[in-house]
Amino acid sequence: MITEKVETLDGWYCLHLVFRMDWAAWQKESAETKQAMFNELSELLTDWQEVEKSQKGSHYLWNITGHKGDFGFMLLRPELKELNIAENVWHTLAIYQYLTPVHSYVSVIELGTYSGMPKTETAWARTNKNLYPELPKEDYICFYPMNKVRSGEVNWYTLSYEKRRELMKEHGLIGRKYAGEIRQFITGSIGFDDHEWGVTLFAEDPLEFKKIIYEMRFSEASSVYSDFPYFMVGTSLNTTQQLQTYLGLL
Amino acid sequence: MITEKVETLDGWYCLHLVFRMDWAAWQKESAETKQAMFNELSELLTDWQEVEKSQKGSHYLWNITGHKGDFGFMLLRPELKELNIAENVWHTLAIYQYLTPVHSYVSVIELGTYSGMPKTETAWARTNKNLYPELPKEDYICFYPMNKVRSGEVNWYTLSYEKRRELMKEHGLIGRKYAGEIRQFITGSIGFDDHEWGVTLFAEDPLEFKKIIYEMRFSEASSVYSDFPYFMVGTSLNTTQQLQTYLGLL
Amino acid sequence: MITEKVETLDGWYCLHLVFRMDWAAWQKESAETKQAMFNELSELLTDWQEVEKSQKGSHYLWNITGHKGDFGFMLLRPELKELNIAENVWHTLAIYQYLTPVHSYVSVIELGTYSGMPKTETAWARTNKNLYPELPKEDYICFYPMNKVRSGEVNWYTLSYEKRRELMKEHGLIGRKYAGEIRQFITGSIGFDDHEWGVTLFAEDPLEFKKIIYEMRFSEASSVYSDFPYFMVGTSLNTTQQLQTYLGLL
Amino acid sequence: MITEKVETLDGWYCLHLVFRMDWAAWQKESAETKQAMFNELSELLTDWQEVEKSQKGSHYLWNITGHKGDFGFMLLRPELKELNIAENVWHTLAIYQYLTPVHSYVSVIELGTYSGMPKTETAWARTNKNLYPELPKEDYICFYPMNKVRSGEVNWYTLSYEKRRELMKEHGLIGRKYAGEIRQFITGSIGFDDHEWGVTLFAEDPLEFKKIIYEMRFSEASSVYSDFPYFMVGTSLNTTQQLQTYLGLL
Amino acid sequence: MITEKVETLDGWYCLHLVFRMDWAAWQKESAETKQAMFNELSELLTDWQEVEKSQKGSHYLWNITGHKGDFGFMLLRPELKELNIAENVWHTLAIYQYLTPVHSYVSVIELGTYSGMPKTETAWARTNKNLYPELPKEDYICFYPMNKVRSGEVNWYTLSYEKRRELMKEHGLIGRKYAGEIRQFITGSIGFDDHEWGVTLFAEDPLEFKKIIYEMRFSEASSVYSDFPYFMVGTSLNTTQQLQTYLGLL
Repeated sequence: MITEKVETLDGWYCLHLVFRMDWAAWQKESAETKQAMFNELSELLTDWQEVEKSQKGSHYLWNITGHKGDFGFMLLRPELKELNIAENVWHTLAIYQYLTPVHSYVSVIELGTYSGMPKTETAWARTNKNLYPELPKEDYICFYPMNKVRSGEVNWYTLSYEKRRELMKEHGLIGRKYAGEIRQFITGSIGFDDHEWGVTLFAEDPLEFKKIIYEMRFSEASSVYSDFPYFMVGTSLNTTQQLQTYLGLL
Repeated sequence: MITEKVETLDGWYCLHLVFRMDWAAWQKESAETKQAMFNELSELLTDWQEVEKSQKGSHYLWNITGHKGDFGFMLLRPELKELNIAENVWHTLAIYQYLTPVHSYVSVIELGTYSGMPKTETAWARTNKNLYPELPKEDYICFYPMNKVRSGEVNWYTLSYEKRRELMKEHGLIGRKYAGEIRQFITGSIGFDDHEWGVTLFAEDPLEFKKIIYEMRFSEASSVYSDFPYFMVGTSLNTTQQLQTYLGLL
Repeated sequence: MITEKVETLDGWYCLHLVFRMDWAAWQKESAETKQAMFNELSELLTDWQEVEKSQKGSHYLWNITGHKGDFGFMLLRPELKELNIAENVWHTLAIYQYLTPVHSYVSVIELGTYSGMPKTETAWARTNKNLYPELPKEDYICFYPMNKVRSGEVNWYTLSYEKRRELMKEHGLIGRKYAGEIRQFITGSIGFDDHEWGVTLFAEDPLEFKKIIYEMRFSEASSVYSDFPYFMVGTSLNTTQQLQTYLGLL
Repeated sequence: MITEKVETLDGWYCLHLVFRMDWAAWQKESAETKQAMFNELSELLTDWQEVEKSQKGSHYLWNITGHKGDFGFMLLRPELKELNIAENVWHTLAIYQYLTPVHSYVSVIELGTYSGMPKTETAWARTNKNLYPELPKEDYICFYPMNKVRSGEVNWYTLSYEKRRELMKEHGLIGRKYAGEIRQFITGSIGFDDHEWGVTLFAEDPLEFKKIIYEMRFSEASSVYSDFPYFMVGTSLNTTQQLQTYLGLL
Repeated sequence: MITEKVETLDGWYCLHLVFRMDWAAWQKESAETKQAMFNELSELLTDWQEVEKSQKGSHYLWNITGHKGDFGFMLLRPELKELNIAENVWHTLAIYQYLTPVHSYVSVIELGTYSGMPKTETAWARTNKNLYPELPKEDYICFYPMNKVRSGEVNWYTLSYEKRRELMKEHGLIGRKYAGEIRQFITGSIGFDDHEWGVTLFAEDPLEFKKIIYEMRFSEASSVYSDFPYFMVGTSLNTTQQLQTYLGLL
């Protein structure tokens, strides 16, 4: 039996990458050495900002709260191989001697079409902005992967297209209530990483992350049909000042 | 189908962070060096005590029993970003060269409202004291995360609001029996960390931890609907003497 | 719904702690240095023997078979904080520079009361000997944690008290058959560590470990209602000669 | 009860091996030293190309996207012991001092025969080309293991031969739609590694990976009967230029 | 309810131990140093061969395919403590400075008696040869642990003795078909290690490993009632030449 699949629209490729930093070794360097390494890193980030300005990608740097990592980035690029190139450039930075990659997630911006394909030029323009977005630089970021349950009698993939559309609709209505507070990016990772989707949220008030996810947990699409392996939260390092403060250079 | 959610009241943000210590390297330092590093650490802890006195946060330092870590803290602050700042200050301490973060949990003080919202000024005052608490400095601490089960026919999130309220009530009655022996803090972590809630208990007699959790395991809210991934227990390092003894400076 | 709980009697606190040893570094030390470090360790163990003699605790040192660790101990003490103190003393030993803690289990000697509370003075005396025991120094030790199943329709904690008592009784009858061959210590770890109970067995013939656990696996309390995450087995290091041989000093 | 098994045709043995690279140490070497190490590695790869030309094996080198590893290879050889030999040659390379193996998968090219055994000489020739293939050198590779579900009432291995053949047929029809875009290699790993099969896909457009796997997830063979523990994706390092660029030698 | 257990016959104790080797450090040693370390190792292995000749144990050395380890051994000895002694001797070897133990499995040769106890002297002689075997030195080895399922309605341990005997019989009939190609050793590990049994297979053609395990997976004893956590495969290092080649000394 084959259930009717849903068409997806796919945009930029996405890499979440998180490093652990050897702070003790970093602290032992002189202020000059640290500044020089920061300058080299800054050049890379300036390049990334250029890419963002020319709408050929986007990024968000963050400081993970807790022990799961020290700092990391979410990076969007038109081609998957550009993610590898970007990742590999980090290996050449002097600051990389203090860094170890400890987490990553590979995916691609994805829009489902349960609510229909865009039908007007305006709708397409809006859709394209979502497929090739400029990531907000809000104070807080939340990332988590998600799977749809396939277990015994509870199986998202054997539900009819109509049932899935209905569940996604009521789920989406909850999301809409948080529209002003939260910016949400769904990335598809089937074939790319260990789970089916990644969800990245941005907000000025991190309590909104908890509120939206908790409220959604009472909708059938989540309560019955979704599995959430882990969550990571953190704060922005997107301004020079934030990054310098973080590295102890101010 | 969307089940009626419960409203929560949310207070201070919370970071549990646990370090492993390289004792062999630490022991090789001279008494003077160790004392100097302790003094630097003490200054940080004095700052934290100032924050606590001015009711802008609270904390508890502890020595974990067993190999899951050496020492750590539970930290409460009004904003999530303050948790990052506090975590990052540790990176600058000289003692940090012996430390590796091995565990953490990010959450926010949460009060459920199944038993109703506070209705009087007095009730609100009591509630606020629970949302923005001064952590006790009892001899023992117990921390564990918790999830509500969502698996096949057993699903907390598809139970009716009334059923959940009833289960929470009978569960809470058990808790009340331990009121004099145990101080309990519930923190919500949906969207912040891998599980749904964190529970932190404090007591002078650690046997009470086992008693309350074992007794609660026979109530339906736990026996059928709760999952407990792990537990950590330990002893207070909140006095200067406790910390000096722990670090071998006395 | 609240099921009737069982009362427990609780005795000494218990720490199982296992170290990995850096043998290559140890072997590079001179015989004198190694002997000096052994002597320091011996002093600690002499202290522990004094405690045991004065019936204020007990211990068993062992060499784990296989790669899960090199050597470790099971330690009993009247207060949980004494376990921390004992663990911390190891950090100050010169030999600790070759040691890394890789496993631990925190619990407390526990006696269930499904078969009734002790009713006579003699019965209480026997019970107290079980709550505050001198650990045997048999040649072999086996340790494993255990959980009672709470999964869908199979849930130990929603069984009636009578049903649980009946299952424990038939389970216990199997255990009694091995009374002369095996010494068994049950420790409760709800609230202290990741699983609900620890089981430590001692025997002169390790085949008895396999026989009793395999036979018990056919009793309903185990076959249907118990989950066994892992097992560790090893040999005694409780005599000076055993320890010296182990460390290559003979 | 024994269900009728399916016959398989088995070809070359297969090793997926992934290394992490110590980039900081590598970067500290002089350009000459790095070039010399690259030359030594190139000789090995030239040998591998000779093997491929003489149709006695094949290989694909890649740069993993994300933190799961740095670079690795998929290697095909007529005998399993040749995989060990090839793996062991790497230990002798100067560049190996920067490498740590972090992932591997051992399997053998496998063709199921649900759709019947080859019946003509032409069909056998085609089959042999699939059993002893030259791996494409497309820009992108995707690797994932797979298990058939055996859990309660959902059990692939107790389905009748006819039911399994039918499910594999409808599953295969989806695959055929991607024939021009994706090259797929199925390797069997029962008895060799932790999962039952490995799937390796090659494409010029990595979005095809996601499309085929997502579409297949709606066919019963996947939605109900397959389990996918993890996915890895990456880019080709099969040309000298790709490899030199990756190692920072251009 | 207690189900009738099966009696087992138990023979020699068994340790599977696997090391990772620091090849970069090893390669940096001079040829003389490496040869000296090899000679020391050879003496140990000569001792082991003596034990084998005098029928007081047996062993098999192997090179694991893939990243799960570099080389290891399967060791049989009459007493469990001899496994510890053998393991500890490795700590004293000069070559041990390049070795880290990364995997092990502790068990005991076990023969089930579902098909009845041996009844004649000849049958006992055959049985004893299986309980105290000389391990073959075939080119290939395959090791995997196994558990019998205890989950909801599928529970091996609540099946009647007769049903289990019947399932083992049909399972065994498959095994018999491979008698000329594969030598199989079952070791029991209840009470000794994390799973219930270990299975070690030897063959000249490793494809037979996959064939037998795959075919058995369609028998009810496997398809419904067995769980296989992982598999490891590798090649013999039992001749001096194999070992010298492996260590780069030829």
